[in-house]
Amino acid sequence: MPIVTLTTDFGWKDEFVGVLKGVLYGIAPGVTVVDLTHGISPQNIREGGYALWRGFSFFPAGTIHVYVVDPGVGTERRPLAARMGGHYFVGPDNGLLTPIIAQLEGDRPAPEYLHLNKSSYWLPKISGTFHGRDIFSPVAAHLASGVPFKDLGTPIHDPIRIEFSRPVKTPSGWQAHVTVIDQFGNLTTDLPAGAIRNRKAVRFRIHEAWINGVLDSYGYAAAGELVAVVDSEDYIELARVNGSAAQSLNAKSGDIVEVILTG
Amino acid sequence: MPIVTLTTDFGWKDEFVGVLKGVLYGIAPGVTVVDLTHGISPQNIREGGYALWRGFSFFPAGTIHVYVVDPGVGTERRPLAARMGGHYFVGPDNGLLTPIIAQLEGDRPAPEYLHLNKSSYWLPKISGTFHGRDIFSPVAAHLASGVPFKDLGTPIHDPIRIEFSRPVKTPSGWQAHVTVIDQFGNLTTDLPAGAIRNRKAVRFRIHEAWINGVLDSYGYAAAGELVAVVDSEDYIELARVNGSAAQSLNAKSGDIVEVILTG
Amino acid sequence: MPIVTLTTDFGWKDEFVGVLKGVLYGIAPGVTVVDLTHGISPQNIREGGYALWRGFSFFPAGTIHVYVVDPGVGTERRPLAARMGGHYFVGPDNGLLTPIIAQLEGDRPAPEYLHLNKSSYWLPKISGTFHGRDIFSPVAAHLASGVPFKDLGTPIHDPIRIEFSRPVKTPSGWQAHVTVIDQFGNLTTDLPAGAIRNRKAVRFRIHEAWINGVLDSYGYAAAGELVAVVDSEDYIELARVNGSAAQSLNAKSGDIVEVILTG
Repeated sequence: MPIVTLTTDFGWKDEFVGVLKGVLYGIAPGVTVVDLTHGISPQNIREGGYALWRGFSFFPAGTIHVYVVDPGVGTERRPLAARMGGHYFVGPDNGLLTPIIAQLEGDRPAPEYLHLNKSSYWLPKISGTFHGRDIFSPVAAHLASGVPFKDLGTPIHDPIRIEFSRPVKTPSGWQAHVTVIDQFGNLTTDLPAGAIRNRKAVRFRIHEAWINGVLDSYGYAAAGELVAVVDSEDYIELARVNGSAAQSLNAKSGDIVEVILTG
Repeated sequence: MPIVTLTTDFGWKDEFVGVLKGVLYGIAPGVTVVDLTHGISPQNIREGGYALWRGFSFFPAGTIHVYVVDPGVGTERRPLAARMGGHYFVGPDNGLLTPIIAQLEGDRPAPEYLHLNKSSYWLPKISGTFHGRDIFSPVAAHLASGVPFKDLGTPIHDPIRIEFSRPVKTPSGWQAHVTVIDQFGNLTTDLPAGAIRNRKAVRFRIHEAWINGVLDSYGYAAAGELVAVVDSEDYIELARVNGSAAQSLNAKSGDIVEVILTG
Repeated sequence: MPIVTLTTDFGWKDEFVGVLKGVLYGIAPGVTVVDLTHGISPQNIREGGYALWRGFSFFPAGTIHVYVVDPGVGTERRPLAARMGGHYFVGPDNGLLTPIIAQLEGDRPAPEYLHLNKSSYWLPKISGTFHGRDIFSPVAAHLASGVPFKDLGTPIHDPIRIEFSRPVKTPSGWQAHVTVIDQFGNLTTDLPAGAIRNRKAVRFRIHEAWINGVLDSYGYAAAGELVAVVDSEDYIELARVNGSAAQSLNAKSGDIVEVILTG
């Protein structure tokens, strides 16, 4: 039976995540449920999008990824399922999947999208405020149990897409942006490592701080130093060794990182 | 093999939750363990009671729910097991189960309670401070492995009950109370949605703030607005759209919510 | 199939922990993965060492414990695997295992250590910043799937050890130290309970506060009182009943606890 992952902004204070799992195990006994993360900031669709995009491909093909960052719960926004890149995705149609859709553009077989409108695969009673429990988990569980993907809804071709930042070419290099700030206060950017040919001939500026060159890892500089490294997804990351770049720079997602190529 | 859920005030900083699972898997290989939540405020029995009551029924029949919010650990308070509503419950006899007992009053078959006093189903060595590990997890694991419920202890008929708030009828409507404050800062109350016939003809006052009517969900008001909705358990909930009602109102569990029926 | 536990400083904000699990399930379908804790303070090797040492033995023999507190990721520090006390351990060679190695000194069969240098058991592409994903989880998964321990690397005999505090004998008793501060603000010390013969004839001083005697559990003193108890691992612990000793005493790991034996 496939794995079901969960990505939400529920946090860990309440019983919400446990309830999603109760529903999943009830419909699909024997399923393996994995928390991708529940630490998405409340209602922050982009943050959820980055997490799912960065994580999904490390799971086996056939995995079902449920995401619930859902400020529009209970309104007309569509419940969505997608099949792409050998994985399944189930959640609200709110643009969270944009980076994955962009990455898999042109992939074969082509991505398929469904408007989840077959209530026979939902819980019998639908609340106005908890579709993760009432719609998305039940649909994922039925899919895990062998219900064919296409039975879950009606095909659509226009899933919502939203803007995610991209680096901009400048005369001297790139204007990049902070995307994800992780648990360690490291600042991931939207600049692919491949955009920098010579890792010694580059300077980065964020706010008033300057960094020279790209290191192979944190441990090649002294504790407290501000460094640039290649993150685990092959993007440029700014970090303070054994400290928090986010805190010391008062940085936030979206902040500009000037990249100056010097050779 | 049945599911075992865990509800504690252990948080996630320490190895305590992992250790509970080690004990469970050691005694009952193949069991499925699910965190309901470990985010209960330290020693807050009522908060744990709300979480377990709100969550338990979404798990399959036969699930074993272990709860460890246990300020009396190591004292004379009894270890308890209960069978009711098709589920099992294992934890200290301290009133945490009160809302579930109240809900299942009159249920058939009648609830059964045990004083857990058969140490052959415990770990060999019992500490004074960690009965979740030494008593409750082992008992749950033996139950999951097929030990008959009645073998685990001696029948009792007087499990501890404690007071949980209830709404009070007033000339103009109800005096309700904040019960649970969730991850989003939403304020659940003790007023069942069914107590309000006409969702347009009602006003709520909490502290100095007023709310008119009950919406179908958060998305039907603008970001920042204070609204009333029906929560996922069919109780009235006060929320600030895309914000935190708890923080902006400085609200806490037990705060009074005046409910004025206007039609 | 054996259990794999995870002990990291990743926290729960990001998708990192989920990704470790994706890799594990991908290589070893059917494995059971358990979070020991992800709440280790960033880069705090000793804190990780205490958690794993306190927790590992409650898991069944054969369990594989992956630990990732890894400030030296991507540098020359060795990837390590150990077989000792009937358990397996996989992580960076940075001293985190010191308390377990010390406890199992003289154990038979003797502990075995490997330098993990067989890249055929790693992910195909190794990042500079996430060896938990690229090396340690894949190695653990192959081990769980039946690859013989000795195939994973080259035997070594000099795993890194680092200092952990120990109590010092004084004319009047002991100078002990705070080791672990748990979720409740309880202060565990490095003094084994067995060092105190008469639990009524002992005084403890931490900062300017004094405590008389050792109680059987928290519940034998009034809320708010500062007490000493025997913790669940048989060490002396200082606690404030239904409160936080750490917060009220402004205590931190390493703080001195004077122990005066009075009889």
